[in-house]
Amino acid sequence: MNIEKLLRPKSMAIIGASEKDGFGGDTCRIILQYKKEQSRVYFVNPKYSMVFDRICYPAIADIEDEVDMAIICTPKKAVNTLLREAAGKGCKGAVVFASGYAETGSEGKADQDELVDLCDKLDIALMGPNCAGFANYIDDVFSFAFLTDYRQRKGNIGLVSQSGQICLAGLDLPNIGFSHIISSGNSAQITVEEYLSFLVDDEDTKVVCAYIEGIKKPELFINALRRAALKRKPVVILKSGRSEKARELAASHTGSLAGSDKALSAIFEKYGVLRVDDVQELFFTAQVFSRLKKMPASFKYASLNVSGGEALITADTALLSGIELAEFGQETKQKLKQLLPFYATASNPLDMTATLAYDPDKLAAALKIIMDDQDVGAVIMGYTINNVITDTTVRCLIEGLEKATCSEHAKPVVWLTFVSHTPDKEQSDHLEVMNIPVLPPSKYGFKILGSLNKFASYRAEERNLDFVNSTARAAGKYAALTEYESMKELADAGIASVKQVVVPDKTTLQKVIAELRFPLVMKIDSPDILHKSDAGAVKLNIGSKEEALVAFDEITGNAGRYKPGARIGSVLVREMIPQGTEVIAGIVTDNQFGAFVMVGLGGVFVELFEDIQLYPVPLSKHEAKKMITSLKAYKLLTGFRGEPSKDVDALSDLIVRVGDYACNHINNLKEMDINPLFIYEEGKGVAPADALIVKEIP
Amino acid sequence: MNIEKLLRPKSMAIIGASEKDGFGGDTCRIILQYKKEQSRVYFVNPKYSMVFDRICYPAIADIEDEVDMAIICTPKKAVNTLLREAAGKGCKGAVVFASGYAETGSEGKADQDELVDLCDKLDIALMGPNCAGFANYIDDVFSFAFLTDYRQRKGNIGLVSQSGQICLAGLDLPNIGFSHIISSGNSAQITVEEYLSFLVDDEDTKVVCAYIEGIKKPELFINALRRAALKRKPVVILKSGRSEKARELAASHTGSLAGSDKALSAIFEKYGVLRVDDVQELFFTAQVFSRLKKMPASFKYASLNVSGGEALITADTALLSGIELAEFGQETKQKLKQLLPFYATASNPLDMTATLAYDPDKLAAALKIIMDDQDVGAVIMGYTINNVITDTTVRCLIEGLEKATCSEHAKPVVWLTFVSHTPDKEQSDHLEVMNIPVLPPSKYGFKILGSLNKFASYRAEERNLDFVNSTARAAGKYAALTEYESMKELADAGIASVKQVVVPDKTTLQKVIAELRFPLVMKIDSPDILHKSDAGAVKLNIGSKEEALVAFDEITGNAGRYKPGARIGSVLVREMIPQGTEVIAGIVTDNQFGAFVMVGLGGVFVELFEDIQLYPVPLSKHEAKKMITSLKAYKLLTGFRGEPSKDVDALSDLIVRVGDYACNHINNLKEMDINPLFIYEEGKGVAPADALIVKEIP
Repeated sequence: MNIEKLLRPKSMAIIGASEKDGFGGDTCRIILQYKKEQSRVYFVNPKYSMVFDRICYPAIADIEDEVDMAIICTPKKAVNTLLREAAGKGCKGAVVFASGYAETGSEGKADQDELVDLCDKLDIALMGPNCAGFANYIDDVFSFAFLTDYRQRKGNIGLVSQSGQICLAGLDLPNIGFSHIISSGNSAQITVEEYLSFLVDDEDTKVVCAYIEGIKKPELFINALRRAALKRKPVVILKSGRSEKARELAASHTGSLAGSDKALSAIFEKYGVLRVDDVQELFFTAQVFSRLKKMPASFKYASLNVSGGEALITADTALLSGIELAEFGQETKQKLKQLLPFYATASNPLDMTATLAYDPDKLAAALKIIMDDQDVGAVIMGYTINNVITDTTVRCLIEGLEKATCSEHAKPVVWLTFVSHTPDKEQSDHLEVMNIPVLPPSKYGFKILGSLNKFASYRAEERNLDFVNSTARAAGKYAALTEYESMKELADAGIASVKQVVVPDKTTLQKVIAELRFPLVMKIDSPDILHKSDAGAVKLNIGSKEEALVAFDEITGNAGRYKPGARIGSVLVREMIPQGTEVIAGIVTDNQFGAFVMVGLGGVFVELFEDIQLYPVPLSKHEAKKMITSLKAYKLLTGFRGEPSKDVDALSDLIVRVGDYACNHINNLKEMDINPLFIYEEGKGVAPADALIVKEIP
Repeated sequence: MNIEKLLRPKSMAIIGASEKDGFGGDTCRIILQYKKEQSRVYFVNPKYSMVFDRICYPAIADIEDEVDMAIICTPKKAVNTLLREAAGKGCKGAVVFASGYAETGSEGKADQDELVDLCDKLDIALMGPNCAGFANYIDDVFSFAFLTDYRQRKGNIGLVSQSGQICLAGLDLPNIGFSHIISSGNSAQITVEEYLSFLVDDEDTKVVCAYIEGIKKPELFINALRRAALKRKPVVILKSGRSEKARELAASHTGSLAGSDKALSAIFEKYGVLRVDDVQELFFTAQVFSRLKKMPASFKYASLNVSGGEALITADTALLSGIELAEFGQETKQKLKQLLPFYATASNPLDMTATLAYDPDKLAAALKIIMDDQDVGAVIMGYTINNVITDTTVRCLIEGLEKATCSEHAKPVVWLTFVSHTPDKEQSDHLEVMNIPVLPPSKYGFKILGSLNKFASYRAEERNLDFVNSTARAAGKYAALTEYESMKELADAGIASVKQVVVPDKTTLQKVIAELRFPLVMKIDSPDILHKSDAGAVKLNIGSKEEALVAFDEITGNAGRYKPGARIGSVLVREMIPQGTEVIAGIVTDNQFGAFVMVGLGGVFVELFEDIQLYPVPLSKHEAKKMITSLKAYKLLTGFRGEPSKDVDALSDLIVRVGDYACNHINNLKEMDINPLFIYEEGKGVAPADALIVKEIP
């Protein structure tokens, strides 16, 4: 399928063209209003001979020109016939607005499948159905069915959305510019992942934005994210489906099946995707990356305010949101002092006082001093842009900024408002031209600065960005390995050193015991006994051959009494490891995204605080370490309450090896659980005390 | 001081009246523009005979009328003289805009003290200095120096702010109405607490709002909060000083000293104050209480959206923000199904589809069905109000709401936007008239609904709202009681049953031991040995008289060797209590707000997760229980991992008694630390294993 013919057609036909309200009429109106070159746009509708003073053809076949793309504005029942006619005319792309497909249930799903099959057969790249179409501001293509007020919207943000309403929200916002807006609807054939790939590769798109309800092509999706990470192109994603309710609704909205939200979040983390929580955050995050010409080199901000109260509130809200404020150096403070009135404090956040706020030259001088401070990574100008003519402050501030930011060495500047407001258009336009993003109040503003920091500090080279695809295994059958087999896998894979044997009888036990170091642990090795301790079939701290021989009899005896008829062939004998701090590590698999390593601290932390980190395999040591340091209970490993620091380095190495193991067994591994895994003090490593591996039965 | 003459003067003089920009000119402009009855407003300035076509008097003494209040617009140096002249004219209230006082450092502080002394002597209630003045929309008084665009702002929100800029932010917002706006500046004489009291008592003020940098009069402050709680009047407070930086800045902004932020938060919790994080949240929270005619009766919301995508996002963002969505009943679903197209789902959030969104009658019918569902407490209409004429949806939605909310039985409705926008004025005005608050996007919107829930569920009768004031004790000298004395205090106060004695020798030990039940714990009782275990001076699990006698010698012997010369007069003997789950409880004191009980789970929870609850004394059992259930680790007490549930009821009783103890010793108690306090399974109570009390030395 050639997505180019869909998104960059040279000629197009609007089938169902009309002057009425609705898909046909609104699509025509938008084209006539926005499209610069209209000569190869053709209206088609057997009901009219003219639409908006243009010739209207009875059928697509009647157009004398070649037609690359058809916009089908009719209800569902006519669609398939029209697609065949379009294919006959040589169309390779089509937009279908009609609803009534997979979003309506099983009958609609069958119709959708038929539609996709038909387009596949006709070699037509299909957008929709149940979509609002697209606008390509770069190549002057409009196939969009929702009306907006008329203004210039060309810019560098590429948006794909499974909701047309969210496209509309972006289009309605002032001072934001798009390269492409794509409302993919049910995304039946060409999917969100393909549009996302297109936007990642598109040179005119500086920021990729997406609203996604469900992923259909995980590999394509991840490949796009990887390319973006390597190109350092920001990808901002609003993904619904965190709540059970949203997952239920997704099925009825676009027929999407939502995968595991936690798995997806982990993937976003790996590829540096900026996940946002709502529509407001989506567009204002995009605006920041769209405007800023350079990223902050460090992540401490200087904040300038026109009032002491706002300076205080900025200090508090920055702290609450985890945004760090720079500490001005002595030189900075001294120089600022010379500009400020005697009573003012040269601190950060800085209360500019009227002295700076009403004097653009002084403000520019102060900004230069602040930007020269090496602790400052970027500047926040904190002020609400009103729509009121009485407020001259904003003009002075903008003029000051203009003088200060014209230098090449100027650090990035963002504007932070205190209340959301009707902003003055002239000033907003001015800031847009100056490439200064305007942020909403703190709960959004600082979250967005957090995303800016995250993107600017992301280093693809620290990550292992490979994606190891697994064969789908939702329907597979699985079985757990025994403890011996599970631990043997760990040893064979070099994940951990494990000294153990399984002995069928005491004679063998006597033979092999010389190769093991006491103390030993012995357990029944039976597929029929899962709760070995309950069965009295576990003996710890065995200090000699004699004790081992006694233990053998006790273990087999107890096991036999515990479960008569159980297969009690043999006993597991393993070198006992010293007690350490309990950690759990392992592998879980997601049906869409394959294997993830997990790590957490043992005990209540996992169960009570859900303090588990999840990460896609394979992973680098840097990534493994970051998983560990991201645990809420991480402090417990760093010399908490006088305990010695723990061997986080060794734990990181183990996690990397666990990840590699998962990659090597990607097609039949279901899960691995090393629990407990003991971590010892620095330099003394980690050791598994028990493990369970679940694999597919061939 | 009579604050009435300041805030509700019948006549006033603007001293320093002018036509220029600045305090004098702007104050005159505002009065001329806003004030309806201007006959008893007098301009004073020796430089002019006319100002804005009105007579300008050379001095206040020249005014023929009585003057209640003087607005002094001059710089600092003229202020004191003018105040004396005003007093000579009988003024009982004055507003001083001038800056250069306590906010500028120690010299300014001295000037401010002199100013306050003067006003006290002259019996003048003083607003400021370093303030922007006030506007009293109810009584038609304007003494405000910051210009805004002209429009009607009379309403029911009363605001006091230590920052004039924040007053301005409120005044600039559209569709919000005030009873009083007070910029109290340095609040040197009449303080924030007094304005807050005024607003709590003012019948025309429905919602009290405050921006506060520091509390000066804790008792007045708390009394105002209590009256508001008992009247069920919402109090919304933005208090800066959470961050170290903000606390430093506060001193230089309004000369405020910030108290302990955690103590203040606990006080807010007790009195049901709604604490907000920034200016945006302050005003939009106020707007909700200003508009809604009734509170939701339950706290599950129904959400209506015009698109599936927005419905999904609402489900997710509600979950993220802790806002619960109602589960529609079968009847509700069936009735809604009849209104919706066949493919739509009658779920919550509800995608209205075009069928409801474009048909006000159908929408009204759907709203009535939803409001009749008993699980629904209130309704959220989710839609962005644009400024674009093409959007007719918003008109249909408002019309539908109008039809549905005219009934007395209608449940509260709030409007939630998805992006912040220039809202259409006509529609915004319409929603204002309909008393439907318009909320900013989710990060604010749902936080504000959380405040609404908090206010609506607050019950003053469940709380003990007494405030026990303590004598200031920052400069006191303190000493720790011994373990025996501390535990004896607990026993004497009925906080816990403790069976213990201190014995000076073995003869006494033999005598008293018959009255104690084994096992016992014995420890050295010496003011010179703090770390008893390190000294080998603690013996546990003593099972007989013989063991006790041996222990006595060992303890005194070890203690003597550990610290030669230490006073080793006696040994503490106590019935040993069984091991339970470790809790800590106690008392901490704040210099401004007196005593607070604290409770937390022992071990890492307090130190690693800062999982401590703090609450002002005295407190009711309901409040004590709420402290416990608010702990992050509370689940550990409720039958976690197969453990029996713990006796939370007994712990609550103990906390109440600890609170009472603090009240009874308010003037000499510094802190109490019961650590560990063992909590046992339900019905088996709690018991302290150790305690430390610190008291003032008389």
